Amino acid sequence: MGTVLRDVRTIEHHDLPVDIRIDGNVIASISPSPVTPNNDDDLIDGRGKLAVPGLVNAHGHAPMTLLRGIADDVPLKTWLEEAIWPAEAKLSADDVYWGTLLAQMEMVRSGTTQFVDMYFHVDAIARAVTEGGLRAMLSYGMIADRLDRKGQEELRRTEQLVRDWNGEADGRIRVAVAPHAIYTCGTEIWRKAVDLATRYNVPIHTHVCETTKEVDDWRSRHGCTPIAEMERLGVFSVPTVAAHCVHVDGEDIGYLADNHVTVAHCPASNAKLGSGIAPLGQFFRNNVSVAIGTDGAASNNNLDMLRELRLAILLQKASRQDPTAMNAEMAFSLATTNGAAACGTNAGVLEPGALADLVLLDLERCPTMPVHRPLSAVVYASDPASVTDVFIDGRSVLRNGEFLTLDEEEIRAHARTIGSRLIG
Amino acid sequence: MGTVLRDVRTIEHHDLPVDIRIDGNVIASISPSPVTPNNDDDLIDGRGKLAVPGLVNAHGHAPMTLLRGIADDVPLKTWLEEAIWPAEAKLSADDVYWGTLLAQMEMVRSGTTQFVDMYFHVDAIARAVTEGGLRAMLSYGMIADRLDRKGQEELRRTEQLVRDWNGEADGRIRVAVAPHAIYTCGTEIWRKAVDLATRYNVPIHTHVCETTKEVDDWRSRHGCTPIAEMERLGVFSVPTVAAHCVHVDGEDIGYLADNHVTVAHCPASNAKLGSGIAPLGQFFRNNVSVAIGTDGAASNNNLDMLRELRLAILLQKASRQDPTAMNAEMAFSLATTNGAAACGTNAGVLEPGALADLVLLDLERCPTMPVHRPLSAVVYASDPASVTDVFIDGRSVLRNGEFLTLDEEEIRAHARTIGSRLIG
Repeated sequence: MGTVLRDVRTIEHHDLPVDIRIDGNVIASISPSPVTPNNDDDLIDGRGKLAVPGLVNAHGHAPMTLLRGIADDVPLKTWLEEAIWPAEAKLSADDVYWGTLLAQMEMVRSGTTQFVDMYFHVDAIARAVTEGGLRAMLSYGMIADRLDRKGQEELRRTEQLVRDWNGEADGRIRVAVAPHAIYTCGTEIWRKAVDLATRYNVPIHTHVCETTKEVDDWRSRHGCTPIAEMERLGVFSVPTVAAHCVHVDGEDIGYLADNHVTVAHCPASNAKLGSGIAPLGQFFRNNVSVAIGTDGAASNNNLDMLRELRLAILLQKASRQDPTAMNAEMAFSLATTNGAAACGTNAGVLEPGALADLVLLDLERCPTMPVHRPLSAVVYASDPASVTDVFIDGRSVLRNGEFLTLDEEEIRAHARTIGSRLIG
Repeated sequence: MGTVLRDVRTIEHHDLPVDIRIDGNVIASISPSPVTPNNDDDLIDGRGKLAVPGLVNAHGHAPMTLLRGIADDVPLKTWLEEAIWPAEAKLSADDVYWGTLLAQMEMVRSGTTQFVDMYFHVDAIARAVTEGGLRAMLSYGMIADRLDRKGQEELRRTEQLVRDWNGEADGRIRVAVAPHAIYTCGTEIWRKAVDLATRYNVPIHTHVCETTKEVDDWRSRHGCTPIAEMERLGVFSVPTVAAHCVHVDGEDIGYLADNHVTVAHCPASNAKLGSGIAPLGQFFRNNVSVAIGTDGAASNNNLDMLRELRLAILLQKASRQDPTAMNAEMAFSLATTNGAAACGTNAGVLEPGALADLVLLDLERCPTMPVHRPLSAVVYASDPASVTDVFIDGRSVLRNGEFLTLDEEEIRAHARTIGSRLIG
C-alpha cells in the first residue's frame, strides 16, 4: 500500500499541480499527469495545498518542553543554576518519555519531520520517537573531566545507546556521540568519543562557542579557541553537528569549512539568553554548512521551526542593516537540505528516491494569503495552523490537523501533571 | 444583555479563576466569586482559558495584506519602486476594503483588538472596520511638498476624514492626521497638519527616522535631525504616534520623552528591510513611551502581534548580548497599555471600567504547555492557534476560533481574486 498526494503544488511546480506517489518510505514519483492509484493506495486530496520537504530541527533537547518558561529574562548562570538544573534533577525517565512525546506533537504541527537531540534518559526518548513517528538523531550528553569511573560510565552509556538504538525504528533513529562541550569534557573523553564515533561510523554532536565567556575563558586558559582545540583533538575527522558557533574567528571558520561540520544555528536561544547572533554571512561566504535548530524549549520557548527560520533571517538583516543579507530560499535550504545532510539522511528534498518526509501546507488562509510566491508565504508568513498534513518515512502522522501517531489528550494530561510537580 | 466569562484565569489571578462581567462595551467587574448572570446574558465557559487585554498594533497599513510577499529580500528602493508602488497604483477602494477585512481576520486570530493605520482610500478602510469589528485609529497618509493645489487637496481629504469618521462605529473608529513623513511633506503642510490636529483634538501619526539614509539626508540638507525639525514645527504640541524611530540621537530622545509622543516600534519590518534595530534600551531609560506595531504585511509579512512581541524582545537581547535587556512583562505592556494610551482609548488593561477589548487563550495545548508562568507562555510560546475568543467593545468577534463578524470564505475569495490581478 502506498500513498498518492493528488493535485498538490510544490515550490518548483507551483503553477501546475502534480501527483506525488509515496511507496514504502520513499517518494516514488512526482509527475504532472494524474497517477493511477492502486486499489489499496491511500489517496489524499492535495488541492489548494503546497507540499514541501519536512523541516529538520538541527539541535535541541526535546524533553525540555517540560521546562518551557520555567525561567526567562535572566542571565545564563542564574537560568542554569537556579532553574534548569534543579528542575532537571527531578526528571525521571518516564517524564523524559512524555516530554519527548509533547515535543513531537509540537514539532509535527509546525512542519518538522526530523530532529537532532542531546539529553539524558535517552532510552526513554528513543521509545517516544519509536511511537511518535519522527525521524531523529539522538545522543546522550556526556559530561566528564577525566577517564575515571564517571568518564568510563559516560562513554559506556553512549556506546550502549549506539548499540541499542542506531538504525532502529525502521531506520528512523540514528545515534550520535555527544561530548556535551569542550569545557565540560576532558581531553581523554574527547579522544575516546572520537574513537567511538569512528568505530561505529556515527557523527559527533556537541555545543561549541555559544557565549563570549566560553571562548574567552578557554582562550585565556589554553591559548586557542574551542574550535581550534577540537581540530587538534581530531574531532573533525568525524562528521560533526556543532551547535551554536556564535563567537568564532577566521581560523575557526576555516576549520568548520574544511571539514564535514554542520553548524546548528539556534537563533532564538542565542538571542533569548543574550549569547548574540552567529555570523551567518561569514559562514555563507566561506562555504560553511549551516542548519537551523530551536535548541530546547526552556530557552526558546518553543520548537516551531517556521518561527526559527524567519527569525534567523530577520536577525541577520537587522544586525547587518542589509535586506539582502539572507533570503527565503537560503533559509529554507538550511532548514531542509542542510539539516538532513547533517543527519546523513536522504531527506530534505522532494524528489524521487528521497525519503518521504514531507509536509502539506494550506496557504490559502489569512496569515499567508494572497500567495504571490509560495516560498515567501512559507518562510515569512505561515504559522503552525498552515500545516495540515505531515508524512514521515512514508507514514501519515498528521492528517487534516489531527495527530495519527500521538495521543494528544493523553500527552497533555501527562505534561500537565509533570509540569505541576516540577514547580511544586 | 451582557456577557459573563466564567472561571477564567488572568495574569494577575492565575491561581484562582475569576468571573469577568462585560456590560455594554466595558468590563463591569472581575470577581473571584461566581457572578450570577442575568437571564439574557451570554455565558462563556472560561475554564482552562487565560484572559488578557487585546493587543494593540500601533502602526500599520492594513490593506497591504494584499501585497504580502510581493517582493522580499531586496533593498528598500527596489522594494518600493519596483514592487509596492506599481501594485498600489492598481488598488481600488474596493480592493482596500477587502484587504482591510483580510487584515482584521489576521489580527483577530492573533489576539489584536485595536490598530493604528495609515493608507489611502480610507473611507473604504473605515467601512471595513465598521463591519469587521476592530477598534482602530485611521489616517490618510498625506504626501505633498507645498501648499499648492495638491497640498490643499491632501489637507482637505484629511479634514473630511476626521469629520466623517472620527468617533464613528460606536466610537471604535478614531482618526489621526498623518503627514506621511518629514521628507515627503513640506513645512507648510506640516504646520497646517498640526493646526488641523489641534483644531479637531486628534493625534498626529507619522513615520520618522526609519533608515540611516533618511536621517543622514535630512541632516546634510537641513543641519538637524528629522525629530528636531518636528519639534521646531510644533508637531509635539499634539499627541503623536511616531512610527519606527530606529536611528535617533540623544537630543531626539529628549524630545520624544518630554512630549506626548509614542514610538511605534516595528521590529520585523525594520529588520526585514534592513533598517536596523531601534534603541529600546535608551527609550526605556529615558522614559520614552514605546508601543509595538507590525507595519504593513508587505514588509513583515504578517500582522501577528504575538510574533512581533517576541521578536521585539529577542532583537534587543541578541543585539545587546544581554538576557535582561527586555522582559516579557515590559513587552506585554508595550503591546497593550502603551498602545492603547497612544490611541487615547481606555483599553489595554483588564479592570472594571475599561473597554471590553479582551482575548481568551487556551494555553493548555502543545505550543505553550505546561504553563509555569502564564505571561511567559503568552509572550514567548503562544501562537495564533492559542487564541480562542476575542471580544472588542464588548462584542464577541471570535468564538472558539470561529469569526462572528467576518465572513472568512467571502474574504478569502476576494483576496484571492485581487491578489491574482495585482501580479497579473
